[in-house]
Amino acid sequence: MNLGMEKPYVVGIDIGGTNTVFGIVDTRGTILSSGAVKTQTYATATEYVDEVCKNLLPLIIAQGGIEKIKGIGIGAPNGNYYSGTIEFAPNLPWKGIIPLAAMFEEKLGIPTALTNDANAAAVGEMTYGAARGMKDFIMITLGTGVGSGIVINGQVVYGHDGFAGELGHVIMRRDNGRVCGCGRHGCLEAYCSATGVARTARELLAARTDSSLLRNIPAESITSKDVYDAAVQGDMLAQEIFNFTGTLLGEALADFVAFSSPEAIVLFGGLAKSGDYIMNPIQKALDANVLTIFKGKTKLLVSELKDSDAAVLGASALAWELKEIK
Amino acid sequence: MNLGMEKPYVVGIDIGGTNTVFGIVDTRGTILSSGAVKTQTYATATEYVDEVCKNLLPLIIAQGGIEKIKGIGIGAPNGNYYSGTIEFAPNLPWKGIIPLAAMFEEKLGIPTALTNDANAAAVGEMTYGAARGMKDFIMITLGTGVGSGIVINGQVVYGHDGFAGELGHVIMRRDNGRVCGCGRHGCLEAYCSATGVARTARELLAARTDSSLLRNIPAESITSKDVYDAAVQGDMLAQEIFNFTGTLLGEALADFVAFSSPEAIVLFGGLAKSGDYIMNPIQKALDANVLTIFKGKTKLLVSELKDSDAAVLGASALAWELKEIK
Repeated sequence: MNLGMEKPYVVGIDIGGTNTVFGIVDTRGTILSSGAVKTQTYATATEYVDEVCKNLLPLIIAQGGIEKIKGIGIGAPNGNYYSGTIEFAPNLPWKGIIPLAAMFEEKLGIPTALTNDANAAAVGEMTYGAARGMKDFIMITLGTGVGSGIVINGQVVYGHDGFAGELGHVIMRRDNGRVCGCGRHGCLEAYCSATGVARTARELLAARTDSSLLRNIPAESITSKDVYDAAVQGDMLAQEIFNFTGTLLGEALADFVAFSSPEAIVLFGGLAKSGDYIMNPIQKALDANVLTIFKGKTKLLVSELKDSDAAVLGASALAWELKEIK
Repeated sequence: MNLGMEKPYVVGIDIGGTNTVFGIVDTRGTILSSGAVKTQTYATATEYVDEVCKNLLPLIIAQGGIEKIKGIGIGAPNGNYYSGTIEFAPNLPWKGIIPLAAMFEEKLGIPTALTNDANAAAVGEMTYGAARGMKDFIMITLGTGVGSGIVINGQVVYGHDGFAGELGHVIMRRDNGRVCGCGRHGCLEAYCSATGVARTARELLAARTDSSLLRNIPAESITSKDVYDAAVQGDMLAQEIFNFTGTLLGEALADFVAFSSPEAIVLFGGLAKSGDYIMNPIQKALDANVLTIFKGKTKLLVSELKDSDAAVLGASALAWELKEIK
């Protein structure tokens, strides 16, 4: 890959429901400078883009100006790679279809690509992280929800409409499945997100009588972090919650392997950092459920990108890809 | 696509457990001539390849000789596209890893590609059939088993090891699932293959007492064709079997859409020809289970290739693809 040293930097912008963070990134994945704005403050997308550019431009100038920037990559909820638009994102203040990539291109004169955050994370991992050099892998982001970015033949899978890779919404429980945020029942996300773990904790605590450190916390305010802390202190119930969560996730991963036979599955997010408590049951369930022909072939990895940097790095990596398209 | 008119034909070879069929195919998908040998007759792969070539060569010569043939495509169980080998195919007489593509190349001096039969079917459908012009679709073959060929960005998904696309083996029933031929429980194939339909018939007939035309047939010899014939005659139990089968398949397809957001899902095989009896419940379950963002976007199609021709056409289409690689 010719990274085009005459334009040595890219910009990554990660748009979250609360914060927007952005940074200038070099070819090695070093964030040279960064900034942030509150996403919710701006009633229109135009005001929002103006404000981001106002904060971003000084950073760009400090690195030598627009001509040093190869491109801008944006990770955003409901981002459509093909059109560069955000479409009906429930957690953003701007309704309908917003042509965000075009708005940044127009404002700054820099080619801009946009996709959803999980796809951006996959490109980030392929460019700077645990999936360097891989052409076939699946990124699973375990956060408030469960997202995914699928890479096949070195390309992110966008599907015919730009929205492929919603693996958080495959159905894992067809009977009496939990209600998911998407309105359906039994989705992977309803069990294996951080909120799913907290739900499992509440369900188990209510259904059982054995003692647990988690009983010291008001049920409604239990978080997946609380479950982790209890597990580390040897709490059996907390460890069982991770077993349940990891087993269910491992079963799902076995199905994903049947689809694209990836070289690796890369897990990202708070839950993925719960160490053996979560990784052991995932690996065990993956091994137990995967089709014989795939047994032992797919590596289970944890993201190598720092949590705080990953969103900006992932978004920025999209901009290196841009170059190859143009 | 430049089909290279100086070499206007390709050869398709479909290797089944019982028969091997082959034919010379032109750019429009017309089979100009064809032949067959019994697969099981040949104790070694060398004898087998010799025999196929002995039968194939006169057909090639009749079309103007080796120099008119762009390539050979082979569809075979457990075929690995990357290596051109058949690996541990349970239904073929030759054990271990057989470098079949290389053997044909050596024997005939024609470039040869090989993949499994469902992937070949997908390439056939993309080249000559219902998926012409599509870059993102999923082919599901409903036969003795359930196979799949996944096309993303115009390329068949082979995965990192050459074996991707085993959608017949995603798990649809995690509790008390039927034993599948693969040794696991609850696979899609255990329900939605022709043998799965016959199993459903036997289970329902045993569990219930309502009358059915199927009760006139010894339970162990009921086939999916019998179920279809009964359904056509208005048999309620037979129609219920198709409802059950189609609903389960539609639920699976909804998960596949979440993966690659295909423009279409193309169904192939005897079951797919059971008309509304099977297509209505599939479509209904797909619509009911697909994530909102994908609703109404993915077409449900039936293969446009004639059953008798499809295997050879699919295999032959691989050979046009070959050209693009070289």
